[in-house]
Amino acid sequence: MTAQGKLKVGVLGATGTVGQRFILQLSNHPEFELAVLGASASSAGRPYKEAVAGRWKQVHPIPDNVRDMPVTACEAENFKECTVVFSGLDSTPAGPIEAAFRAANLRVFSNAKNYRRDPLCPLVVPLVNPSHFDIIPHQQASMSPPLKQGYIITNANCSTTGVVVPLKALEDAFGPLDTVMVHTMQAISGSGYPGVSSMDILDNVVPYISGEEEKVEWETCKILGGLTDDKKAFDLHAASPLTVSAHCNRVPVIDGHLACISVRFAKQPAPSPEQVNEALRKYRCEAQELGCHSAPAQAITIHDEPDRPQPRLDREWQNGAGVNVGRVREDPVLDIKFISLVNNVMLGAATSSVLNAEIALKKGYLS
Amino acid sequence: MTAQGKLKVGVLGATGTVGQRFILQLSNHPEFELAVLGASASSAGRPYKEAVAGRWKQVHPIPDNVRDMPVTACEAENFKECTVVFSGLDSTPAGPIEAAFRAANLRVFSNAKNYRRDPLCPLVVPLVNPSHFDIIPHQQASMSPPLKQGYIITNANCSTTGVVVPLKALEDAFGPLDTVMVHTMQAISGSGYPGVSSMDILDNVVPYISGEEEKVEWETCKILGGLTDDKKAFDLHAASPLTVSAHCNRVPVIDGHLACISVRFAKQPAPSPEQVNEALRKYRCEAQELGCHSAPAQAITIHDEPDRPQPRLDREWQNGAGVNVGRVREDPVLDIKFISLVNNVMLGAATSSVLNAEIALKKGYLS
Amino acid sequence: MTAQGKLKVGVLGATGTVGQRFILQLSNHPEFELAVLGASASSAGRPYKEAVAGRWKQVHPIPDNVRDMPVTACEAENFKECTVVFSGLDSTPAGPIEAAFRAANLRVFSNAKNYRRDPLCPLVVPLVNPSHFDIIPHQQASMSPPLKQGYIITNANCSTTGVVVPLKALEDAFGPLDTVMVHTMQAISGSGYPGVSSMDILDNVVPYISGEEEKVEWETCKILGGLTDDKKAFDLHAASPLTVSAHCNRVPVIDGHLACISVRFAKQPAPSPEQVNEALRKYRCEAQELGCHSAPAQAITIHDEPDRPQPRLDREWQNGAGVNVGRVREDPVLDIKFISLVNNVMLGAATSSVLNAEIALKKGYLS
Amino acid sequence: MTAQGKLKVGVLGATGTVGQRFILQLSNHPEFELAVLGASASSAGRPYKEAVAGRWKQVHPIPDNVRDMPVTACEAENFKECTVVFSGLDSTPAGPIEAAFRAANLRVFSNAKNYRRDPLCPLVVPLVNPSHFDIIPHQQASMSPPLKQGYIITNANCSTTGVVVPLKALEDAFGPLDTVMVHTMQAISGSGYPGVSSMDILDNVVPYISGEEEKVEWETCKILGGLTDDKKAFDLHAASPLTVSAHCNRVPVIDGHLACISVRFAKQPAPSPEQVNEALRKYRCEAQELGCHSAPAQAITIHDEPDRPQPRLDREWQNGAGVNVGRVREDPVLDIKFISLVNNVMLGAATSSVLNAEIALKKGYLS
Repeated sequence: MTAQGKLKVGVLGATGTVGQRFILQLSNHPEFELAVLGASASSAGRPYKEAVAGRWKQVHPIPDNVRDMPVTACEAENFKECTVVFSGLDSTPAGPIEAAFRAANLRVFSNAKNYRRDPLCPLVVPLVNPSHFDIIPHQQASMSPPLKQGYIITNANCSTTGVVVPLKALEDAFGPLDTVMVHTMQAISGSGYPGVSSMDILDNVVPYISGEEEKVEWETCKILGGLTDDKKAFDLHAASPLTVSAHCNRVPVIDGHLACISVRFAKQPAPSPEQVNEALRKYRCEAQELGCHSAPAQAITIHDEPDRPQPRLDREWQNGAGVNVGRVREDPVLDIKFISLVNNVMLGAATSSVLNAEIALKKGYLS
Repeated sequence: MTAQGKLKVGVLGATGTVGQRFILQLSNHPEFELAVLGASASSAGRPYKEAVAGRWKQVHPIPDNVRDMPVTACEAENFKECTVVFSGLDSTPAGPIEAAFRAANLRVFSNAKNYRRDPLCPLVVPLVNPSHFDIIPHQQASMSPPLKQGYIITNANCSTTGVVVPLKALEDAFGPLDTVMVHTMQAISGSGYPGVSSMDILDNVVPYISGEEEKVEWETCKILGGLTDDKKAFDLHAASPLTVSAHCNRVPVIDGHLACISVRFAKQPAPSPEQVNEALRKYRCEAQELGCHSAPAQAITIHDEPDRPQPRLDREWQNGAGVNVGRVREDPVLDIKFISLVNNVMLGAATSSVLNAEIALKKGYLS
Repeated sequence: MTAQGKLKVGVLGATGTVGQRFILQLSNHPEFELAVLGASASSAGRPYKEAVAGRWKQVHPIPDNVRDMPVTACEAENFKECTVVFSGLDSTPAGPIEAAFRAANLRVFSNAKNYRRDPLCPLVVPLVNPSHFDIIPHQQASMSPPLKQGYIITNANCSTTGVVVPLKALEDAFGPLDTVMVHTMQAISGSGYPGVSSMDILDNVVPYISGEEEKVEWETCKILGGLTDDKKAFDLHAASPLTVSAHCNRVPVIDGHLACISVRFAKQPAPSPEQVNEALRKYRCEAQELGCHSAPAQAITIHDEPDRPQPRLDREWQNGAGVNVGRVREDPVLDIKFISLVNNVMLGAATSSVLNAEIALKKGYLS
Repeated sequence: MTAQGKLKVGVLGATGTVGQRFILQLSNHPEFELAVLGASASSAGRPYKEAVAGRWKQVHPIPDNVRDMPVTACEAENFKECTVVFSGLDSTPAGPIEAAFRAANLRVFSNAKNYRRDPLCPLVVPLVNPSHFDIIPHQQASMSPPLKQGYIITNANCSTTGVVVPLKALEDAFGPLDTVMVHTMQAISGSGYPGVSSMDILDNVVPYISGEEEKVEWETCKILGGLTDDKKAFDLHAASPLTVSAHCNRVPVIDGHLACISVRFAKQPAPSPEQVNEALRKYRCEAQELGCHSAPAQAITIHDEPDRPQPRLDREWQNGAGVNVGRVREDPVLDIKFISLVNNVMLGAATSSVLNAEIALKKGYLS
């Protein structure tokens, strides 16, 4: 803990796109103090501003208190004083590094995809299922040797995040969903930097994102499902089977994933559009009840104009920490259809990890 | 008929976006001779190049044989020598003008929406349902006084067009469809000029196009349905009810409407993705069999790459007269899902009207 | 004055693009209280949120304290309690309305172009020439009848603004300029809403903006020139003639005008790029010295990376109140060339008007 | 020579962006027969369609007669039957490979930058300076051992090309130029594939292209200058020194480089804008006089509309083989200013190489 009573935290992959977002979120956080920046071995020992030169692509400059921080290699030894380690690593290095950090009794909050499907690792969208933290003791006990502190928490794929928040609100209000059809129009920032070639996306749509549809279809069930009673496994929405179909597309938008969603409820008759709007507007999540610093005031903002939400106009609302919904109406095939917008680089990435750590703090999982 | 044996044709709304496309299609046509250009009264009497000054927004220059043609008012008297009149009018003037032209015994092939839902007017996508021309005698007989020559044929909304071509191929091969879910990502040119403000669409998606979803849902049933046995009405797919749900979005693409489509077949078990690909690839339509000039060699082009078709790369293929399909795969909710691309300013607009007229010629409806 | 000791201010053209920016700037200002919102007669009497419905195109929502404010007609009587009236009017209504407001002894700070070339009206870029306020007594005395309070202050065209700030810094450091060549690449927001059609600008550059080149060429001389000794006229840089040539282009960028600038100094030998960088970095303006609320901490930010400033990454820096400069280097033809970026909707528009009013307050021109 | 009397030609770098353009230009050429496709060793032996899979980014499909052609390694032995070898190689491999091909007595027409500044290699824009071919005998004689057939001809950087065509027309009509200022707005395709990241260019301008300004400034003098009397050296515009200053920018445009150009003539008084327009419109080049297949009917197309040429609307005119000019007007600083547009992937790249070879054929340099 620092002199100001803050908890020291570190960032893995600090020079990458997600790492840059972690730095902006954490450089002036009331509870966390950015203490260690990890990057590739080639950057180690250099000041951050040099390590990231030519790759800092944020609309805010590098925070003054970070510019000259030294970058270190992603080795657990260097992060031992960190209460939390945030991982913005690419998937190739993320697997072994995050495992090694956990084995060194470090708490890893990861944006990487590697452990999302792990049967011991929570996949937590902070506005939806922090209850999954309760598997942590079992995750720790299952390691060899068993761990006292270390664990891995993942957050969801950016496009899944914008889908599950309104779905959770609907399940809370109207019981389990039976069927979900999702059609995404995803921003280029979801692919990192340099990511999508301008030759591929200017005046164009790419109707394919490798592996994305499977992620949305699978992650939705893990997130919306609960834990088994013994808190040793995820039930994957088993009690009431949920079928999800996703079409994923890349569109020429900087930030903000838009999804067209159609749902059918298990319990009939289904609610009316007015009832759905009301339920979404009233939805409150545990992160709000706990008073977490990064939680949005309004989890789901309902837009009344027929052409909203739109990525460019609505993605920055509440600092990108909430979800925007509009056009709730009847679906001729399923029951209800609507539009959902999530800021993929905020709630869809770094904000989720940070908010998960804030929740973990409030719930006693950082002590 | 001209000295070269061509039929004289006219264009209504010649200075507008659709009218410009008609001019490009017709300025060098083997069967039709562009003889009369109609526009608003304020343009009447001026050479075309002046009437359209500042509004010609095509990548090809005004054809040399059109630049100095005089523009005339949209009055039937001025078009009396035209075997066919193509209408690119906006919907406000289209209603009364097209009715007046029909009453003057002129044959109107219209891209406007006004008569698409008319119980006497065919709504014809030339690659799908030219059989609907057979209602023409009844349309003529129903006028007061009955007409010998005049009639109105409409073509479909641009987004509907890209949807019904593959659906028709599927129904031909596997029997009626039961359910269709469509998500469109539509080009800005679909809204004409000036149309969509750049402030609304740059770095953005607008998840709403006024009236568009209803058009796709309704027009699909009219087009895929047949005529009643007496050829006096459209059956609207009545024998085997078809439910359609559409989400329509505007994206920053110049030309080319992309649709994500999921379908369920009435007859189970449903075909496999391989069978669907085969059926789409083999699909041939009447316009092809009749040898129509503007018909594409391949009605539906199947793309094998996982990320195709794409608007920018595939919209010009076959001069935009066919439909492009890709990513045929199983749908976890319905049976099959795939991507469809139509060039909204070609097959989705002027090409459909011109091809409808070519079919009408071959089938004897212009004599 | 309000209970909180703030000065009441009004906004003309409150529902337009510039008016919306004024509202965002003024809704939480330490010295000014937004008291009256003026718009067209058709909006008068309605709450602001309704009057602006469908046209509010900001990334921030309408401020809570403005949503329900009533809109009133742009008549001086309605604004009589306002110490300052900001005008975001279009040029057509701006001429007579602003004159009428001045005649009613109101102080008008206008973003409209109408009085920029007026020989009695200051054209003030707040980071450059607030000394021109000294013509106000002469402007008031020249009215019939002479005015005690009323006057009109204009701010510059958005593209001129980004040019004159660094030029002023250079003249302060190295004496008069002799020649300036400017090439602009201007954002679409400079044209308001709906403004530029997406069909004109997507995948395109429009190498022409009506009247813009003349504005840059003329306004630069008025702004960089001083007042005559009797403070009754603008000298238009007469003592040392300055020749300006501008090429103006519209590019597909939302906000942020970029200019490539080449200059020749009257005094030779010219300074080196290093000296120019130093002079630009050190430049401080009167708005800073006076401690104005909206003044940027750094008037001109120098970027060291070779590819900066860029509109998307740098336009929000300092809330868009400063100018960004990069790539200072020798010019083979003139002396020095560099890049300048201004946020056209902030310093290039509403921020200039507000900052001018803040300066006027500090200098005693609001009492 | 083939059975049809065509000359066999090869393409180096056939799977790259420029190579793909060569293939489209040559797959149906009346004089040249595409016989050998060279690419990296890893592609050698595979059919072209497989070697280029995932990288073919043209709006036309791979030509049918090329899809199954085998790709071979870029070794001179494999190209020995080729009368001409076109090089679309990247600069890293281009240096040694092109030298080796020349040494093997092959004629190389290269789009790479490596030999543009070579004192023995012509830098030929086909609409401007095919007279530079006359240095070929000296280039061949200077090799060790001297060559009978082999030589290297380069074409210019894409942005230089659009500049020198109108400048050449002006020098032909009004004598040498003294000063040229150029400001480019260059398309993303100029950077190849994947090239510019979409994160860098969407809603943005990048005011820097590495090395580009130097190329425009230097190449212009080599191209506009003549050969020395002995035809053994380039005079680089020495008789009448020409100073060029360039600002180069990347804009979000797919194809088409736009340049704002200001010029001063050595001979005063300078011509009027009308005289300049007339001279540009009348300009004819040797490629036209020789009747070359790929030469444009009109070398320079003058646009009368004040906002043209524009990249999206005018780049395809004459298949991108000519230059488009507009807005010719007086310049307050130099004499005349105007806008120039070149299709960077056509005349600015592959079309130049092909047209250079066509000229060489007509002038006897291929025998």
